[in-house]
Amino acid sequence: MTGTQSHTLSILVENHYGVLTRVAALFARRGYNIDSLAVGTTEDPDVSRMTIVVNGDEAVIEQVIKQLYKLIEVIKVVDLSKEEYVDRELALIKVAATSETRADILQIVEIFRAKIVDVGSNTMMIEITGGGDKISSLEKLLRPFGIKELARTGKVGLLRGPKDVVKEK
Amino acid sequence: MTGTQSHTLSILVENHYGVLTRVAALFARRGYNIDSLAVGTTEDPDVSRMTIVVNGDEAVIEQVIKQLYKLIEVIKVVDLSKEEYVDRELALIKVAATSETRADILQIVEIFRAKIVDVGSNTMMIEITGGGDKISSLEKLLRPFGIKELARTGKVGLLRGPKDVVKEK
Repeated sequence: MTGTQSHTLSILVENHYGVLTRVAALFARRGYNIDSLAVGTTEDPDVSRMTIVVNGDEAVIEQVIKQLYKLIEVIKVVDLSKEEYVDRELALIKVAATSETRADILQIVEIFRAKIVDVGSNTMMIEITGGGDKISSLEKLLRPFGIKELARTGKVGLLRGPKDVVKEK
Repeated sequence: MTGTQSHTLSILVENHYGVLTRVAALFARRGYNIDSLAVGTTEDPDVSRMTIVVNGDEAVIEQVIKQLYKLIEVIKVVDLSKEEYVDRELALIKVAATSETRADILQIVEIFRAKIVDVGSNTMMIEITGGGDKISSLEKLLRPFGIKELARTGKVGLLRGPKDVVKEK
């Protein structure tokens, strides 16, 4: 153990060309690999939210947050991991399926409250949402059948209750 | 109409420091604003998948794809929009809720087969997955109640049936 742990940063940025490059460069320069990144629109069309999952110790993450604030497009950064928050991720998993294995796969899908979103002659595509652990558990259970492809969105998160990342600034 | 349209690019990259920066820089240099970006792990721990939604005409997108292949970390690029594919996005929406409005919100949530994932004294947090249009429709319906915060993952997509982005290379 090096004292590093997973941090989920919610970053509100102005929608300018190149803001993503600058944020990504800031992490890369310091040698941090980003575990996951999700960039999507918000309730305000001029503002995007980046959710970045990164490993590092407390002091290092604090440094990163300070550096982020130096970028003019950055409106607000919150380390969700320090608060009560809800996080979710979505994955699409395409798994090999034969007439022999289809029923078994369906049963696993049901247990995980996942959804079948496409069925091919030899494949099924499954949609699942949840915390990262839930997705990884489903992936593990499906692996013996043969995972053809997998796409994960990366986490997004919001603070629980009335607390609000935007208007705190 | 300028002939531009929305393209969903699925890009498999090796997990190296700085690959995100280089990909983002490639778009920024050309003045393309990325509408959404999702970066997550795949079935192979050394490989990540970026899903990028970007507007542009055919010729421009083809140029971008050529440029992407010049980056050594880029394994494969597929313009999903040219094939049959399934895409999904996840959003968390925190909406103001009072004892008067709660039942109305619940009804909307049910119609959209969305889920309540947190309830505060004056707020509810909703999880929804679907194509981007479904999420935008829910957002529109919830707006009159007061959207406090919204986080979207950005789209991910996979080709329908047995076709496979990875092994096509």
